[in-house]
Amino acid sequence: MAENHKVHFGVNYTPRQGWFHSWLDFDPKATREDLEQIASLGCDHVRIFPLWPLIQPNRTLIRESAIKQVVRLVEIAGECGLDVYVDVLQGHLSSFDFLPSWVESWHRQNLFTSPKVISGQRTLVGALGAALSELPNARGLGIGNEFIQFAAPRHPQQHEITSQEAGHWLDELFAEAKQVWPEGKHAHSFDDDLWFDAHHPFTPELGVTRGDITTVHSWIFGALGLTYGADHQYLPMFARYLVDLAAAYQRLFLGTNTGPIWLQEVGAPSTHLSRGREAEFVRHTLEFLLGRQEGEGGGAIAGTEHLAAVTWWCSHDVSRQLADFPALEYDLGLFDEDGQVKPEGQAFAQVISDYRDGKLGIYSLKNEGDPGQSILRVGLTRDGSDRNLLSPAGAFFQAWAEQAINGQVPKIELSHKN
Amino acid sequence: MAENHKVHFGVNYTPRQGWFHSWLDFDPKATREDLEQIASLGCDHVRIFPLWPLIQPNRTLIRESAIKQVVRLVEIAGECGLDVYVDVLQGHLSSFDFLPSWVESWHRQNLFTSPKVISGQRTLVGALGAALSELPNARGLGIGNEFIQFAAPRHPQQHEITSQEAGHWLDELFAEAKQVWPEGKHAHSFDDDLWFDAHHPFTPELGVTRGDITTVHSWIFGALGLTYGADHQYLPMFARYLVDLAAAYQRLFLGTNTGPIWLQEVGAPSTHLSRGREAEFVRHTLEFLLGRQEGEGGGAIAGTEHLAAVTWWCSHDVSRQLADFPALEYDLGLFDEDGQVKPEGQAFAQVISDYRDGKLGIYSLKNEGDPGQSILRVGLTRDGSDRNLLSPAGAFFQAWAEQAINGQVPKIELSHKN
Repeated sequence: MAENHKVHFGVNYTPRQGWFHSWLDFDPKATREDLEQIASLGCDHVRIFPLWPLIQPNRTLIRESAIKQVVRLVEIAGECGLDVYVDVLQGHLSSFDFLPSWVESWHRQNLFTSPKVISGQRTLVGALGAALSELPNARGLGIGNEFIQFAAPRHPQQHEITSQEAGHWLDELFAEAKQVWPEGKHAHSFDDDLWFDAHHPFTPELGVTRGDITTVHSWIFGALGLTYGADHQYLPMFARYLVDLAAAYQRLFLGTNTGPIWLQEVGAPSTHLSRGREAEFVRHTLEFLLGRQEGEGGGAIAGTEHLAAVTWWCSHDVSRQLADFPALEYDLGLFDEDGQVKPEGQAFAQVISDYRDGKLGIYSLKNEGDPGQSILRVGLTRDGSDRNLLSPAGAFFQAWAEQAINGQVPKIELSHKN
Repeated sequence: MAENHKVHFGVNYTPRQGWFHSWLDFDPKATREDLEQIASLGCDHVRIFPLWPLIQPNRTLIRESAIKQVVRLVEIAGECGLDVYVDVLQGHLSSFDFLPSWVESWHRQNLFTSPKVISGQRTLVGALGAALSELPNARGLGIGNEFIQFAAPRHPQQHEITSQEAGHWLDELFAEAKQVWPEGKHAHSFDDDLWFDAHHPFTPELGVTRGDITTVHSWIFGALGLTYGADHQYLPMFARYLVDLAAAYQRLFLGTNTGPIWLQEVGAPSTHLSRGREAEFVRHTLEFLLGRQEGEGGGAIAGTEHLAAVTWWCSHDVSRQLADFPALEYDLGLFDEDGQVKPEGQAFAQVISDYRDGKLGIYSLKNEGDPGQSILRVGLTRDGSDRNLLSPAGAFFQAWAEQAINGQVPKIELSHKN
């Protein structure tokens, strides 16, 4: 079998001690321990998350010491053999919102349209980008982890904007990132509201036309889990669906100028997986993406050509000493809160190893009499106002899943409705 | 003349470098420089303000390192000859709200009634109180700087509560403070909404019946400034009015069991004082409180017996490098942003010196034919629903001010309406 190298594997780095509050007491030694554990799985990269209110507590105060801590973390990661993507505006992590006081309460301004806020955000993107551009293993910036949730109709304190304003905001921040760090690979990120919520101002068009790479976050506790229930056989196919859907939207809006997709978040939540089935979920999710031969754990699956990287959520369990997280958030780590690798961590490492050995990474099934890949077509309005048709709660997904479950994953073809 | 010692003088400590964001990069050397400057004015105490989201970023994570920084600051203050009062829940400072992520947005809970939030607040009060109780120059806790503004009808994201709930919240936090630090002098604080806003759940009764000492914050940019305008001769009398009003409410609700009043905040805002008149405002404000002999800058004034301490707002100007503060907040320091004493700082030092020398601190005017102190009486409902009658925009204040301006400050006598 040929060796595979195309797909990168990494994790979203959640510090074992103190979660992201550890930025308040940055500890290079504890950081190194965590990153060495991550590297031991065979990962080649991590995604990291500074907290916005700590790095920029006043609009015109970007703490040099905080920038230096981010740089130091990236250096340590480099010493562990890991590349790093740095997400700038946190923003939002595991149900908690972190906003600096200068955009909140008496100072509340629209996070996406206020010229003052955008100016402050640009300055931060510029400062971090400039500092990171000099590090060989720093690879790019993220605008902010699922930052678009602040504009979601379901957010308790929604910042209302139009899609045009959403696009302008992205253009502003990407312009800054490119200016200070032209070689960086810069992305934005979003939960699947972007793909499925017809009322969300951030549209699939913005998802695939802004930034250097299209990202996907795959969480089975959303509409999919609500529709099909825990442990359903469709759950491990959701990441594949999203990746192929994102690729389909790329073809729709970019024509032939498409690029690879980064599965930037995917995790095994206890709400929809029975205890003990997490490792199997890890394996199956990645098999549906990478493809497998018959006999390797079931029937053959043709992988997707679109996948550039998988970044698992997350590295370390949230300590049970920290309160108020949603229950599922405590158990998402590949390592437990004591730093011991969990079965899902072992499964992830095995997949990485199998992929590199060529045991996974199968992109076409050459069976005799094979009818070839089928195509599922759907016409959509340009503005995303009927994108909910593609939700995992709907008939389109069901049709896709009924075929995909047998290993021949249908191609998704989108067109513009008149 | 006899020496006076009864009244204490201090400042609210606003760190020169980085304002309160300096907690993120606590610098003992810079702190010592600031505190030495403050001590050089003759001050005997400071009030300090940890930021709640930094010290308790998760409900069950109180950062030991943050507690140690507070303790270290208090120790340095002690080495400079200063006592320290520590305000716990910030909360609110100079127009900015600082709330931890575990009470905001998706985790929003009522700050005054949620059992989880109260439990977290109690834990923090307990942790800080226990650590501080061992320091000889630590004097007491404040519940939180003007924390009641979160319950104000005018707050943009009001936490609605009843007066009963407000009282329960205070009782919970004071119980914790007393338990861990019985000798501490613990107080709560509030803007003058408590005295004048008929709809505010925190009532004058709660103002004077909770805590070891009653506090007063005197800001002339409120209803007083709006009514009388900049540079009006009544402006320097406002602090005196508030102190005597608080004492009157003590008599109303506590009978004879009254105590001294702490003028915990008073400042010279540029919105209502012409440039160059700040020092005069400092002097006149304190003369109306302390009393002066005829000839010492004008006619004689009888001071108030109720005053225990004056804590000026604030020590150091906010750096112009920090954005988005209301304009007046940049100029309230007794020292400028380079650490140079300002005319208002010199005026404050002179008052302290004059008071201690007995040139100020005159409590009765013994002129022949003096009719003695007059009394202004008003009947009020028990629940505070007509407390707006005493607002500086109203007739009661006007009657008080017309007499007070001549130096014979009338006594305020409140009674309960049937």
